Amino acid sequence: MGRMHAHAWRTAPRFFDLPRTPVLALLAGTDAARTAVAADAWGFEESTDDWRRAIERDDIDVIDICTPGDTHAEIALAALAAGKHVLCEKPLANDVADADRMVAAADRAAAAGVVSMCGFSYRRTPALALARRLIEQGRVGEVRHVRAQYLQDWLSDPEAPFTWRLDKSRAGSGTLGDIGAHSIDTAQWLTGDAITAVSAVTRTFVTSRPMLSEQIGLGGRAHEGAERRSVTVDDAAAFTASFSSGALGVFEATRLATGHRNSNRIEINGDRGSISFDFRAMNELDFYDATDPADEQGFRRIQANEVGHPYAAAWWPPGHGLGYEHLFTHQSVDFVRAIEGEETARPSFAEAARVQRVLAAVERSAAQQSVYVPVEGEN
Amino acid sequence: MGRMHAHAWRTAPRFFDLPRTPVLALLAGTDAARTAVAADAWGFEESTDDWRRAIERDDIDVIDICTPGDTHAEIALAALAAGKHVLCEKPLANDVADADRMVAAADRAAAAGVVSMCGFSYRRTPALALARRLIEQGRVGEVRHVRAQYLQDWLSDPEAPFTWRLDKSRAGSGTLGDIGAHSIDTAQWLTGDAITAVSAVTRTFVTSRPMLSEQIGLGGRAHEGAERRSVTVDDAAAFTASFSSGALGVFEATRLATGHRNSNRIEINGDRGSISFDFRAMNELDFYDATDPADEQGFRRIQANEVGHPYAAAWWPPGHGLGYEHLFTHQSVDFVRAIEGEETARPSFAEAARVQRVLAAVERSAAQQSVYVPVEGEN
Amino acid sequence: MGRMHAHAWRTAPRFFDLPRTPVLALLAGTDAARTAVAADAWGFEESTDDWRRAIERDDIDVIDICTPGDTHAEIALAALAAGKHVLCEKPLANDVADADRMVAAADRAAAAGVVSMCGFSYRRTPALALARRLIEQGRVGEVRHVRAQYLQDWLSDPEAPFTWRLDKSRAGSGTLGDIGAHSIDTAQWLTGDAITAVSAVTRTFVTSRPMLSEQIGLGGRAHEGAERRSVTVDDAAAFTASFSSGALGVFEATRLATGHRNSNRIEINGDRGSISFDFRAMNELDFYDATDPADEQGFRRIQANEVGHPYAAAWWPPGHGLGYEHLFTHQSVDFVRAIEGEETARPSFAEAARVQRVLAAVERSAAQQSVYVPVEGEN
Amino acid sequence: MGRMHAHAWRTAPRFFDLPRTPVLALLAGTDAARTAVAADAWGFEESTDDWRRAIERDDIDVIDICTPGDTHAEIALAALAAGKHVLCEKPLANDVADADRMVAAADRAAAAGVVSMCGFSYRRTPALALARRLIEQGRVGEVRHVRAQYLQDWLSDPEAPFTWRLDKSRAGSGTLGDIGAHSIDTAQWLTGDAITAVSAVTRTFVTSRPMLSEQIGLGGRAHEGAERRSVTVDDAAAFTASFSSGALGVFEATRLATGHRNSNRIEINGDRGSISFDFRAMNELDFYDATDPADEQGFRRIQANEVGHPYAAAWWPPGHGLGYEHLFTHQSVDFVRAIEGEETARPSFAEAARVQRVLAAVERSAAQQSVYVPVEGEN
Repeated sequence: MGRMHAHAWRTAPRFFDLPRTPVLALLAGTDAARTAVAADAWGFEESTDDWRRAIERDDIDVIDICTPGDTHAEIALAALAAGKHVLCEKPLANDVADADRMVAAADRAAAAGVVSMCGFSYRRTPALALARRLIEQGRVGEVRHVRAQYLQDWLSDPEAPFTWRLDKSRAGSGTLGDIGAHSIDTAQWLTGDAITAVSAVTRTFVTSRPMLSEQIGLGGRAHEGAERRSVTVDDAAAFTASFSSGALGVFEATRLATGHRNSNRIEINGDRGSISFDFRAMNELDFYDATDPADEQGFRRIQANEVGHPYAAAWWPPGHGLGYEHLFTHQSVDFVRAIEGEETARPSFAEAARVQRVLAAVERSAAQQSVYVPVEGEN
Repeated sequence: MGRMHAHAWRTAPRFFDLPRTPVLALLAGTDAARTAVAADAWGFEESTDDWRRAIERDDIDVIDICTPGDTHAEIALAALAAGKHVLCEKPLANDVADADRMVAAADRAAAAGVVSMCGFSYRRTPALALARRLIEQGRVGEVRHVRAQYLQDWLSDPEAPFTWRLDKSRAGSGTLGDIGAHSIDTAQWLTGDAITAVSAVTRTFVTSRPMLSEQIGLGGRAHEGAERRSVTVDDAAAFTASFSSGALGVFEATRLATGHRNSNRIEINGDRGSISFDFRAMNELDFYDATDPADEQGFRRIQANEVGHPYAAAWWPPGHGLGYEHLFTHQSVDFVRAIEGEETARPSFAEAARVQRVLAAVERSAAQQSVYVPVEGEN
Repeated sequence: MGRMHAHAWRTAPRFFDLPRTPVLALLAGTDAARTAVAADAWGFEESTDDWRRAIERDDIDVIDICTPGDTHAEIALAALAAGKHVLCEKPLANDVADADRMVAAADRAAAAGVVSMCGFSYRRTPALALARRLIEQGRVGEVRHVRAQYLQDWLSDPEAPFTWRLDKSRAGSGTLGDIGAHSIDTAQWLTGDAITAVSAVTRTFVTSRPMLSEQIGLGGRAHEGAERRSVTVDDAAAFTASFSSGALGVFEATRLATGHRNSNRIEINGDRGSISFDFRAMNELDFYDATDPADEQGFRRIQANEVGHPYAAAWWPPGHGLGYEHLFTHQSVDFVRAIEGEETARPSFAEAARVQRVLAAVERSAAQQSVYVPVEGEN
Repeated sequence: MGRMHAHAWRTAPRFFDLPRTPVLALLAGTDAARTAVAADAWGFEESTDDWRRAIERDDIDVIDICTPGDTHAEIALAALAAGKHVLCEKPLANDVADADRMVAAADRAAAAGVVSMCGFSYRRTPALALARRLIEQGRVGEVRHVRAQYLQDWLSDPEAPFTWRLDKSRAGSGTLGDIGAHSIDTAQWLTGDAITAVSAVTRTFVTSRPMLSEQIGLGGRAHEGAERRSVTVDDAAAFTASFSSGALGVFEATRLATGHRNSNRIEINGDRGSISFDFRAMNELDFYDATDPADEQGFRRIQANEVGHPYAAAWWPPGHGLGYEHLFTHQSVDFVRAIEGEETARPSFAEAARVQRVLAAVERSAAQQSVYVPVEGEN
């Protein structure tokens, strides 16, 4: 993720007309030697094993937080207090209390012109940004259904090894917080609507996994007889949701959907039309317009690479698609422009905190026999 | 549906080698004149406005019940008591009590060689029958996820007119019982597993609809200012489900999924593979085999029209697809063969009653704030 | 094909309101015993081993010719002379001379109200009939490109056995006449335009194939060491074509396109729009409208099962697809209606003869180093 | 294209472990001021309006030629003579004579360890590189069919403005040389086989187009009454081709395929399997294995983002796709590795010259009534 952000900061000014040019000034990590190597590989000028160095430096304007979720609050609060603009990876925090403190700090800092934003990067997919525009224009009408599935399969094999992401004390949450959070943000953003209550279930299918003597990366396999460790987070989560508009949401997130490497799918049905998207075909949006003549109606597959599509004018000729990384390039672009006052930084920490509250409601419902649980602050 | 069944009975012996040849002896309806017209159009020898006539006739061996759900029990009980073989459309009954009485009657009759079967016709889709075979052979391994959506859109328009299907006193249930029932049966049949508990929500988006002075069919529109009538059934239902194997199900059924005329979709993910199906491409099954070499893995799209595929040998050359109607042709074939003892009639009334119990659990959960509700008899 | 036609004649009046009801009066074959068995299986009243019996009978109005191509002319001429309406399977004849004699006879008979039609059944695919309507309405504008591929694979295996279809003396032609003819007719019909010249190549990849001691059907394999017989027809044909409008056509037909059981594909690009179709998804048409707003343009996938689509109103609810057989049902419907003067029989023998002339030009070009060869009668 | 190459050189060492790190030393253009602006925007250290400056500099090792085709030979010959490694954009030259001189120069230079390569970038698509590997391993068996279409639509509108690409004196060729050349190279590379003869047709549908007072980019429109200029290149080309293996090729390239922004499609059918690819879904390859069990055969859709897939290990986690630009990143990687002797630079100038000879044969055939024309040097 660090490599990805560095690439985005480096690429953004080469393709977009930015009011200021980002400089990769200082990479902060936990291990001095490894951080120095990474800084060199990723193109940073300097490195440190103490993130506070970045906050102390007057020549640094932006803090980009890509650390695990349990450290977000501390770093963000320090950075905002120092008047730094903050881009923070999602999820905003590992719990609602931390998220709320961050929102408060961001609001205070905003009065002094400090910009903050949370990195729900899928919002920067051109096809999804087009979907947002169509929905905003009323092209799907009143939304009735939101159907979101985030399907991965890297844990399908019951012998896939243990990683820190499966340890609740470090990761905070499992599939739900990691990828389910994306679906929640996307759904609320696309519809412009809030989830007010949920009924949820979570599941851990494989309760222990083998340890690797050395970390050999995803896809590796432990040797037979390896020590096993308990999985303390969810493998999958599913929930139904009510939106304030009355729409009905159905959400599912899993890392055991065999065959789905990264299918981030969302469908929205309204009384005038529908949209359908799968990140597997990230450059395309399916749009159905129920006001078309009856015998010509059909989902039209739009390649979102036209000059008139969000972000697309900066890139290749129509039909030459973009890859995953440019969600981050676009995020850097939007953040720099927000700093210069050209647009508003979105999602704000407040929006990201709303995602956090939905996640909390999902966990509460799952712990209470799936009973319908209101989302705090949305009722 | 009557026309469809008649066509199936007429077509079955022309393409399959049946031990006995069906004869369309008597069509029973409620209005004598209209039933006579239908009998002529559909190719029945005679007609009546009293279904009891069919049961009284010694030369009639089979009663095929296509009436609304509230009459199923009475007709089926009478037919079984008279020693007739009974094919009953789904859902088996409008409530569990009726369904149970039908199961008991079917069991009694079975001792005398009387065959009974419920018409969950989607089981007769060659591609789904192939999916069943693959799952039975262990090709998807241990099932973790079942994801079923039955999406229609004929009620998307809030001014689409009222019909009897929206009146609970006649239809018994709404979208849930009409199409959600198909998903439940398909899921339990494909996995060979039982749903043991559900957490559900139902929704009626459009609470009243205009009356038509005359019934003008789906897709018609009432004149402005038409009298409106309350919709007393669900427009949509969604629920999460636990299977006895530990698999997690997510189900959704709706008649307001704009753009989806009849998308009956199901995906199943196991630890060795996955299947994916949408009735929109009814001749094709997507199958993913996680035991393929790593760099050749992918969903393979199988055209289920080969000689070795279920039902397919009787039909056209490979690649020349079948249409919806032959689910019913195959059902007739299987039923005739079951009567002659060549195979077992499936789904039995008992299996259909299990679907009924899941529907009842869904309704109970929806009425109790989505709390997790066990399915009666499955725990 | 006989079974298919019989099913179509039987099915047509059950779903369409026909002015007259077809009766399967007499099946004519070559072997008396086998024809009698088929007549019984397919639902004919009587059978004969002499097709002249059908022409002699006053109570028979229609002759439906499903014999091999080398007998079409003789039967059709006799039938037309006797005042019978004639539906003749494609290709109309095995050579242009025969086709021309049939056209002349059809023209003479037409003066006396006798109807004749050639069985290019793909015209009766609802999605293609919708494409024809859109093109006729100018929705794709001036046509520039026609791209047609008819891909099958039943000869991919070099050990697939010899059949009569690979013997030029019996089949007349190979892949070109069998399936390439369909693409030619479809292209000329959809565009309303004539192919005026072609440049072609044909290829026989597997020049001999093993004989089976008994015919064991497609997909069977001969025993090792079986006697081999020379293949005297083309396995594949490809040609570029000029249309009278100036459009450029690219055609390909093959029986060795591994993985394609029956992919009958056609794409048409005009200056206002495009259509795309593959028989593999026979109920769907992709339509692109270049007059849509720039950022909403995309191929829209139309399910051609709406009340307003060709043939569709007679069938199931929207979204419940049709199968291959109903091309023939629709053909029967159109033919009966043409006999009663309700519509014009299309394709006429004259239209079918134009396909024959294109096939002849393809063969001439292939025999002359692919040089550009005009289609007789179109220049 | 210059911006693209610069981005590729900058990105390659950030994701791949390269033996040497590229430096963007000097950008050479034709206009000093504009080149200076571009150099700054694209990240070059310096700029010049005389490409000879680059060849004179001792500290420059690599010349990357992105100029119009008519200047390739002169620059490449000078660079090779000076011992520079040369990466030259496709097509290698505007005619066979120039191409041959370049091949001779490259061969001479190679003796001194100088590396040259032509930029057929599509070879660097991971999914196509996977296809190459599968074919090389014999997984599709003996190739019978190659079906390649390169479809664009930026000239569909007859009022789309004139550009230099439509002027034969500058562009050398039209659609054929621009995008048809890609299909030819891809087909020869994937099959490992040579095109030996072709039969071709070219077409210019819109023979004059309006001039813009100022260049307003693709997609713009001239004002009414604008002066028109003659189009002197082909809008479209189609040809059949023989491969030395006996395979039959069908090629089509056009800029008027309405709805196709950039559909670069290729299908290959062999006697053991097939592959199918469309650049529209650039991260996916469809592969059909005819040795799969009969009832499980189907095209499997492989997401070519696994660790074991060509180039993929350097990038994002599986399922997070790449964009168009990384064809060029991979090209830079391969070129640097070839310079260091880690792999062979492909396509060599000699391979690129073979593409040139096929293009020349296509043009000859098109000028001679499509007669079958041998490709020089391949017979």
